[in-house]
Amino acid sequence: MWSPAAGWSSMIRQVDAVVAQHGAGSEGISTGDHDPSGQRADAAFENAHVDVQNEALYIHAPQHGRAECNECGIRSSQDLDHWFGPFWRFGLRWGRRTMNTAAPVTTPVEDLQALLGAEMASVNDLIRERMASRNAPRIPEVTAHLVGAGGKRLRPLLTLAGAHLFGYAGQDHVRLAATVEFIHTATLLHDDVVDESRNRRGRPTANLLWDNKSSVLVGDYLFARAFQLMVETGSIQVLGILSDTAATIAEGEVLQLSAIGNIETTEKTYLEIIRGKTAALFAAATEVGGLVAGASKAEAAALRAYGDCLGMSFQITDDVLDYGGVATRLGKDVGDDFREGKLTLPVIRAIAGGNETERAFWSQAMDGKRADDLTLERAQQVLARTGALESARETANSYAQEARSALEALPDRPLRQILDGLAQFVVARLN
Amino acid sequence: MWSPAAGWSSMIRQVDAVVAQHGAGSEGISTGDHDPSGQRADAAFENAHVDVQNEALYIHAPQHGRAECNECGIRSSQDLDHWFGPFWRFGLRWGRRTMNTAAPVTTPVEDLQALLGAEMASVNDLIRERMASRNAPRIPEVTAHLVGAGGKRLRPLLTLAGAHLFGYAGQDHVRLAATVEFIHTATLLHDDVVDESRNRRGRPTANLLWDNKSSVLVGDYLFARAFQLMVETGSIQVLGILSDTAATIAEGEVLQLSAIGNIETTEKTYLEIIRGKTAALFAAATEVGGLVAGASKAEAAALRAYGDCLGMSFQITDDVLDYGGVATRLGKDVGDDFREGKLTLPVIRAIAGGNETERAFWSQAMDGKRADDLTLERAQQVLARTGALESARETANSYAQEARSALEALPDRPLRQILDGLAQFVVARLN
Repeated sequence: MWSPAAGWSSMIRQVDAVVAQHGAGSEGISTGDHDPSGQRADAAFENAHVDVQNEALYIHAPQHGRAECNECGIRSSQDLDHWFGPFWRFGLRWGRRTMNTAAPVTTPVEDLQALLGAEMASVNDLIRERMASRNAPRIPEVTAHLVGAGGKRLRPLLTLAGAHLFGYAGQDHVRLAATVEFIHTATLLHDDVVDESRNRRGRPTANLLWDNKSSVLVGDYLFARAFQLMVETGSIQVLGILSDTAATIAEGEVLQLSAIGNIETTEKTYLEIIRGKTAALFAAATEVGGLVAGASKAEAAALRAYGDCLGMSFQITDDVLDYGGVATRLGKDVGDDFREGKLTLPVIRAIAGGNETERAFWSQAMDGKRADDLTLERAQQVLARTGALESARETANSYAQEARSALEALPDRPLRQILDGLAQFVVARLN
Repeated sequence: MWSPAAGWSSMIRQVDAVVAQHGAGSEGISTGDHDPSGQRADAAFENAHVDVQNEALYIHAPQHGRAECNECGIRSSQDLDHWFGPFWRFGLRWGRRTMNTAAPVTTPVEDLQALLGAEMASVNDLIRERMASRNAPRIPEVTAHLVGAGGKRLRPLLTLAGAHLFGYAGQDHVRLAATVEFIHTATLLHDDVVDESRNRRGRPTANLLWDNKSSVLVGDYLFARAFQLMVETGSIQVLGILSDTAATIAEGEVLQLSAIGNIETTEKTYLEIIRGKTAALFAAATEVGGLVAGASKAEAAALRAYGDCLGMSFQITDDVLDYGGVATRLGKDVGDDFREGKLTLPVIRAIAGGNETERAFWSQAMDGKRADDLTLERAQQVLARTGALESARETANSYAQEARSALEALPDRPLRQILDGLAQFVVARLN
């Protein structure tokens, strides 16, 4: 089992073993100029690239461009998708090539996957079954592209875990896990249209391969399919939670759109945005799993609090990593939020703690027009000077601790330990 | 009460009285060169234009361009929106200026509105309440633009009617009527992105005023709000119907997108498309109204059949009118489907009944590149020669008759008579 104490380096050993094993014979597997000293944990992945084509996996090498390059380090939620997705699906890993062959260490997500493997297979079957359309072949084309691209399936795992904690023996948690993944996938399709993204999970986005129209309409279809699945559980309580969640997600997305480039954005608004874009679905996913399994009101609230805090921690960590992490470093794989004018927690704190000149800098920089590499470097200097990244990390840590505390109200099973590790793991990307 | 026998001309009298009354003092109300003989019912509206600005009403004059001009004749579902919407909301009407002051004649929609006025007021209150967002002011801005633009509210009226037929005294029909309008509005927002529309109901579309991003996300928000509202009814049966409907709508939209320009499109596919884009929500709207009011299984099926056939008839009529109606006429307000390469029933029938040369013509014309006015004129000639418009009208009539027959299984109340008139009224646009 992975633990923060074991750290990244032990994970890397395992990765390296696989890369070494596949590297010789496999087409296109290669590793780049990694940090040979092993001093910086995340630097190990900084320039690593794996260029494997498999049934449904395309990871692009850095030379494919900046956007793909974001997928090359474990530093954002999408990278986590890469990190975990391919693990389960293809047994492929990427990382620093070392010859260390210490015993394998598993991550909390791998532990969840091992424990809930059979149920997760049912979820995947259900997803495949329900993403089909008798009448409109375009629908399975688009959804297969996205669903098949791999992904950590963290949200459905949380639903299965919520049910498993209470020894659930039915099938509703499988329906709800698929529901949650459909809502997530629909959101991704619409997000890519809104963000004009060209890459997701290392592959061209659906809006690029087909068009924005298909992404909008297929997203709507997946929302409807999600809705049908949850209705099948027959639980009005669950339906209430998931419909509220859908509204919170959409509200958060609109709020984020309106806040772009606005340096008056408050921490309160920021927290509402990330609750919408990330934490709300984490919270609902975990809670509804417990509810169908008969969790009490207090237990359901604890599951919800765990998912919410995990999601908040996850997103704040992502937002810090977008500036290169706390030990700020430059690189092609940072600065997306900056270029898009997204006011994330580090920037909001830097503005609050900055002087007149620095405020003027942010005001100009966040309009999305002057965001070249020099400006980004200046932003990183200001973020460092004001201690904003460190301060944001503390907030992420604090949410992770809150998530761990919420677990205390839940049955003390091995699964609870895994969930505890997961809360540490999410924020450990910064440590 | 309106009847086909009374026809359009009696309606126009009333319209004219209002125009006469407001025309003198009101800014910008004017009428154009209308058919003075009154021989052609719809010609009365052909060039009429009202250029009124009101709190939430903008009707653009023909000189604003072709797209706006589509709003100037009662010949499509959007025009019906104009026709009825402003009636209720502002007491404004437009049409041919004559001095005839015969007694007012009401349409079936006005009759519905009169009968269900109090409940409809509750629906409108609920819509206003639920389209708000505490956190994201962009949401009410966009929704107010669309919801405030007027609209016939035909779908929520069907829900209220379904409940009223069974003497319902609760509030769930109000929730479901608002649900249905939210689903419809969300669909319009996404449709306008997909069709790259610039005008709807005579006003610039949200995607033009704000951006596609806002339209996508606010549409998602309205879907979520619709879902919350229906959950409040606590009826799993109703939730099942509406979630299936949402999937059918999205599937129909994707199918339509894939079928664009494809002259191999079959009647079966066409019927699936229009069931998705129009009839499915009509059917569900009517059925769920009855269900919350305690309709039996057979009665619910009859309500559903009525809504479905009404919707099919409505859409086929629209599709015939897009080529200028059965008495084909040229004009700036026809040919939208043709230019967009939409294979509608008249074209599918013309292709099936056409000769080799005509098939080659359609093949070239429907690619959306050669669709100038001359090509449209040629299309209309071929449609006339093959009797395709007449044949499509017969199909619309046949659906209208089927809708009327379905009513026989329902309680014989005055409301049933209005619904019967509505089925005739919808298709009467072609007669």
